Amino acid sequence: MSVSTSVFDASVDFDDLLELIRPLSVMIISASTTPGSLGHTTVVNVLEHSDFDGQVYLVNPKGGELKGHPLYKAVSDVPAHGIDVALLLVPAEAAVATLQSCAQQGVRYAIVFTGGFGELGEAGRSVEADMLALARRTGMRLYGPNCAGLTMLAPRLGLTFSTEFCNDGRSGPLSRIGLVTQGGGLGRSLMQGNERGVRFSRWFSTGNELDLDSADFIHWLAKDPGTDLICTVMEGIKDGPRFVAAAKAARDAGKPLVALKIGRSDFGKKAAQSHTASLAGEDAVNDAVFAQYGVIRVDDLDELLDVASLISRVGVRSLKRICVYSSSGGAGVLSADKVGEAGLSMALLQERTVAEMARYAPSYAALTNPVDLTTKALVDPTLARNCLTPLFADPEVDVVLYPITSNYAASTEGIVRNMLEVAKGGEKTFVPVWMSSRRGPAHDILIQEGFAPVYSLRNTMLALQRISRYACHVTEAVDRVADSQSLRLRSTTITSEMSLPGNEAQAKALLAQYGVRSPREQQASKVDEAVAHARAIGFPVALKLLADGVLHKSEVGGVQLHLHSEDQVRRAFDLIMNNACQHKIPSQSIHGVLVSEMVTDGVEILVGIHRDEVFGPVLSIGAGGVWVEVDADVARCHLPANRSVLERTLQQTRIARRLERHRNLPARDGQALLDAVQGIAQLFLALGPRVQSLEVNPLLVLDEGRGVVALDAVIE
Amino acid sequence: MSVSTSVFDASVDFDDLLELIRPLSVMIISASTTPGSLGHTTVVNVLEHSDFDGQVYLVNPKGGELKGHPLYKAVSDVPAHGIDVALLLVPAEAAVATLQSCAQQGVRYAIVFTGGFGELGEAGRSVEADMLALARRTGMRLYGPNCAGLTMLAPRLGLTFSTEFCNDGRSGPLSRIGLVTQGGGLGRSLMQGNERGVRFSRWFSTGNELDLDSADFIHWLAKDPGTDLICTVMEGIKDGPRFVAAAKAARDAGKPLVALKIGRSDFGKKAAQSHTASLAGEDAVNDAVFAQYGVIRVDDLDELLDVASLISRVGVRSLKRICVYSSSGGAGVLSADKVGEAGLSMALLQERTVAEMARYAPSYAALTNPVDLTTKALVDPTLARNCLTPLFADPEVDVVLYPITSNYAASTEGIVRNMLEVAKGGEKTFVPVWMSSRRGPAHDILIQEGFAPVYSLRNTMLALQRISRYACHVTEAVDRVADSQSLRLRSTTITSEMSLPGNEAQAKALLAQYGVRSPREQQASKVDEAVAHARAIGFPVALKLLADGVLHKSEVGGVQLHLHSEDQVRRAFDLIMNNACQHKIPSQSIHGVLVSEMVTDGVEILVGIHRDEVFGPVLSIGAGGVWVEVDADVARCHLPANRSVLERTLQQTRIARRLERHRNLPARDGQALLDAVQGIAQLFLALGPRVQSLEVNPLLVLDEGRGVVALDAVIE
Repeated sequence: MSVSTSVFDASVDFDDLLELIRPLSVMIISASTTPGSLGHTTVVNVLEHSDFDGQVYLVNPKGGELKGHPLYKAVSDVPAHGIDVALLLVPAEAAVATLQSCAQQGVRYAIVFTGGFGELGEAGRSVEADMLALARRTGMRLYGPNCAGLTMLAPRLGLTFSTEFCNDGRSGPLSRIGLVTQGGGLGRSLMQGNERGVRFSRWFSTGNELDLDSADFIHWLAKDPGTDLICTVMEGIKDGPRFVAAAKAARDAGKPLVALKIGRSDFGKKAAQSHTASLAGEDAVNDAVFAQYGVIRVDDLDELLDVASLISRVGVRSLKRICVYSSSGGAGVLSADKVGEAGLSMALLQERTVAEMARYAPSYAALTNPVDLTTKALVDPTLARNCLTPLFADPEVDVVLYPITSNYAASTEGIVRNMLEVAKGGEKTFVPVWMSSRRGPAHDILIQEGFAPVYSLRNTMLALQRISRYACHVTEAVDRVADSQSLRLRSTTITSEMSLPGNEAQAKALLAQYGVRSPREQQASKVDEAVAHARAIGFPVALKLLADGVLHKSEVGGVQLHLHSEDQVRRAFDLIMNNACQHKIPSQSIHGVLVSEMVTDGVEILVGIHRDEVFGPVLSIGAGGVWVEVDADVARCHLPANRSVLERTLQQTRIARRLERHRNLPARDGQALLDAVQGIAQLFLALGPRVQSLEVNPLLVLDEGRGVVALDAVIE
Repeated sequence: MSVSTSVFDASVDFDDLLELIRPLSVMIISASTTPGSLGHTTVVNVLEHSDFDGQVYLVNPKGGELKGHPLYKAVSDVPAHGIDVALLLVPAEAAVATLQSCAQQGVRYAIVFTGGFGELGEAGRSVEADMLALARRTGMRLYGPNCAGLTMLAPRLGLTFSTEFCNDGRSGPLSRIGLVTQGGGLGRSLMQGNERGVRFSRWFSTGNELDLDSADFIHWLAKDPGTDLICTVMEGIKDGPRFVAAAKAARDAGKPLVALKIGRSDFGKKAAQSHTASLAGEDAVNDAVFAQYGVIRVDDLDELLDVASLISRVGVRSLKRICVYSSSGGAGVLSADKVGEAGLSMALLQERTVAEMARYAPSYAALTNPVDLTTKALVDPTLARNCLTPLFADPEVDVVLYPITSNYAASTEGIVRNMLEVAKGGEKTFVPVWMSSRRGPAHDILIQEGFAPVYSLRNTMLALQRISRYACHVTEAVDRVADSQSLRLRSTTITSEMSLPGNEAQAKALLAQYGVRSPREQQASKVDEAVAHARAIGFPVALKLLADGVLHKSEVGGVQLHLHSEDQVRRAFDLIMNNACQHKIPSQSIHGVLVSEMVTDGVEILVGIHRDEVFGPVLSIGAGGVWVEVDADVARCHLPANRSVLERTLQQTRIARRLERHRNLPARDGQALLDAVQGIAQLFLALGPRVQSLEVNPLLVLDEGRGVVALDAVIE
């Protein structure tokens, strides 16, 4: 599995977006003289609210002039060639013809704001196909359609019809965060995060992503020196490999990528399909791929803002050891609850920290974690300063958490100012949590001073957990570890002429070539033959129907286990044939039975690989046997993957713990299991795109040193 | 198990709190003339901010007068006897003596605001013991200590030192919600929920609960005609049966009880113990008990406000079928995601609803759920009214959910007003979700008009889910179903003289008396005896060490299974005795071995009962065998419980699904399992308080009609 992921990357390339993002000339089609109209706002955004000093060309069939610029009646009238960006506000039905004119005018990037295409159905998708063909033919790149455009805030450039652009970036210092969203609505919601101190400095709303897609802009932000952190809201991922390549580019640049992938439930998926024209994909696969490449997945807009806010303030670091400081005992307990539930830990304060605090604190103050200096700290600023300084210096503490449950006006303002005075000096991560429904000056001061609060303990813990996990991902870089333990790729090549394995015996033969053994077994077409094989193999044996096209043998009564005698073998053979007959399996496809060594006393594992529509090969591993759906204990990873990633995937399952030594039971052969998983993955990749899925279930994992045995395998 | 829960209730009685809540006379000890001091604020709260026209007596050793009332130098100087309530602001060290004087003065209720008792350690607990003894002796009831007192808002009565009382209940119409919290900090945070439209009308802060506890106030609120809904924040539950009785009283009165139980994680528990003097209990038991008696458990302050707000507005009803209305496609998808994740459903709109909307909506609007009338609805109020009216009338819809992702000032205000106009007319539950970081007039209008928003989709779904579950609980009333299927209580009485079962054989004999069979088995002290028994029982057999005090036989190598021959039995016997010797088990406690029929091919279940410190007998049922800790698949319920509750408890486990018919595997004997669980529970209750726990593991559940077999049992 040391197959490099560059296999992927080779097929992926990204536009440099140079003229789109730093254009020298912009053409607006249909610029409008009617204030309040989209065509007017777009013009105003470029001319008045952007720091844009390039050429601006306005097109409107009525002619005339606007803001000192002539209104050309047609694109072809514009006296320039090689215009960097054209903004299209034309009706959907005029889009193709207008794009045609743009291409003739040498436009490099066309942003189509207009909606009413693929998202409305078949007719729209056909128009989109025409638009895309035009783009491919002419080399002009398309942005949109059905999008809110591009918002750059440093320097300012608003290629957007939004009436809100004029205020964007005006409320305080910008954060170095880039934002990529498909829809405009959720993107605008995030842009309003400026009110809570999260001020995105670039926003790309990509709409239907006919040509340029989110991956292009994530990739661009990964290279952008003005961006430290990238956030995205995605309704669908059109091209898995491009997304993965962009995510890796972000990671390689040291920039966390925070993603809200919507359309995750079945309900959401249905809605996503009607809303945009993209596939939502199977959500568990998204989860697996995001985790594998370090994408920080969040579940809602507020969680995205929380993570972005915290990372942009403190960077990526481990934030697991929490010290709770509170002036309410109950808030301390509740915070400690949340710390525990999130798998974080309450920092164990150093003795000298406690001793230093004890010099100043009243005797009834709690100086272990949670720390509670009581209401005394509300009225005595020197007490707070004296006690908090050692706390903020304690090397055992990653985060000082301050739950603000009530807002007592001036006294809360006082304590917030005290806290900030100490917090600003140190390196420690200070996280205020605003839990009161009453806002006011104390709340606003936190934002003004650059310590934007989170609004619930739960969200705080989620953010700390996610950032810590990302820090760990970056440090360990498991998926980039050179794979010293990998099996060498077997020499067997599977040629395209070879027919796909149609039954279990053929599938097992292929597995054997990749180092995965099956029980000793023999085919038998007659009952006497079965008995003879059973004698040779040794009792007990199992009998399994061997018939082309029958993939789930146990469901047609085609499996008989624990046969201890010749007599039992005879009866089992007859029973299987009767059952096959009752299930109307054509006699010409029945090859007889497999007589098989009974291998028991192992842990039943499922190893499956399928070809995901979006991302390609995805491996599933977990609890096997007949209870797969009931147990629902499966973890996934994207292929190719090295042994470390496979091992980590296995460790996410509950069944993995059954492989460990337990009481008087021996450990199972986990290394042999990983060898087998690697072999199965190699076989799948070698079989090529004709094969959609490969499933070994159960793969029986025996005691340590005794290996694994594939009891059944299906290749489709 | 039809033993009525009145066994419990009989031992529980509640104070009527009459003179505490509607006092005719109040004494304040140490009333203070210094503005801003607690002793001054308390006086002001009673005299100026309460609608109190009873007698007020002020005590201060300095004498003088305050607000026209004389300051008596000592409690004994007060010229009245039989005062209803005394408020104590005296230092901790003066508390006992002051209470003594109060009792002499015939005080009925003493509220001790002062802290510094049990929460600080041993010395404080000893003072508390004195206080409690005094109360028991004199009949004077204690409220507190270490509490924020009592806040009644209709009519107003503030027996509290809080400077915030003067503003409480002034910001808008009161909700008919009562609040009981131990600590003052979290209670005050909830009281500030008035800013988001949740206005508690009574608040009891009970502090250390030395005498009166949360259960008294929950019970009082259950009877209070001014209360429809009860919320509580609990750090510990001192007396399980009292809490359960109060919870049942609330339910019987048709008033939901919403509880935030803090101190749930190990970290939280540690903090809770240092903060208050109460036991946090094992949290899974709290969960089970709450679920069993319909207590709506929430996990944080915001979630409590969400549930309270929604119930106080729409009452208790099933809120599972959601229609999302949104003007952002992305918000629709995200909402549908959250609906799906929460196990709620997207309502299937009736055809005529869609047809009616289609008469007015633009062609590109989405009229299936999620409904999106597009930005057109922002500018055209008649469109919104015409389309929303049929939507709000659709009987397939329980909830119309409106995610407000961005605040576009005037246009958002317009659409909010439109929505409210339709929502106010109908019976349908309308839930606005405010997801923008930008608040403003549109947000405030929602609160003013009585449609307080929730602040995240996640919290919305949680609230809808919790209310729906409660509605279902009330309708089904599973724990109150008469138990027609219950086993009659066996006649065997276990007398206190009988010694407790010391080994497996004795435990199994008791189980047999309660209808739970074990494998055929015989004791053998010598190897030849074991062989003879094995022959009589029939091979294969199992051998198990029989020794007093050895509870986990497999951990000392005391279990040998699948013995198919005399020879194997002999070797197994020797091995077990050797192992026992190596584990230094005294020879006088070894009685030999149990020779046992091998029963296999069943589902291994654990049935355990333990005596919880807070609630008493708690039953655990789930995945049994040697992997109990690894599987961690156990559900719990409080005993006594009827068969329906036991069945529901079992159904909460993953292993329960393994009892069902699956592919070609037969169903297991679920009814026999429930019979056995009832028998085991009866045995435990019959054994009485000497027994702390009883565990049957594994209880093997065989195929339907074949019953269950207890393979091992431990009684301690």
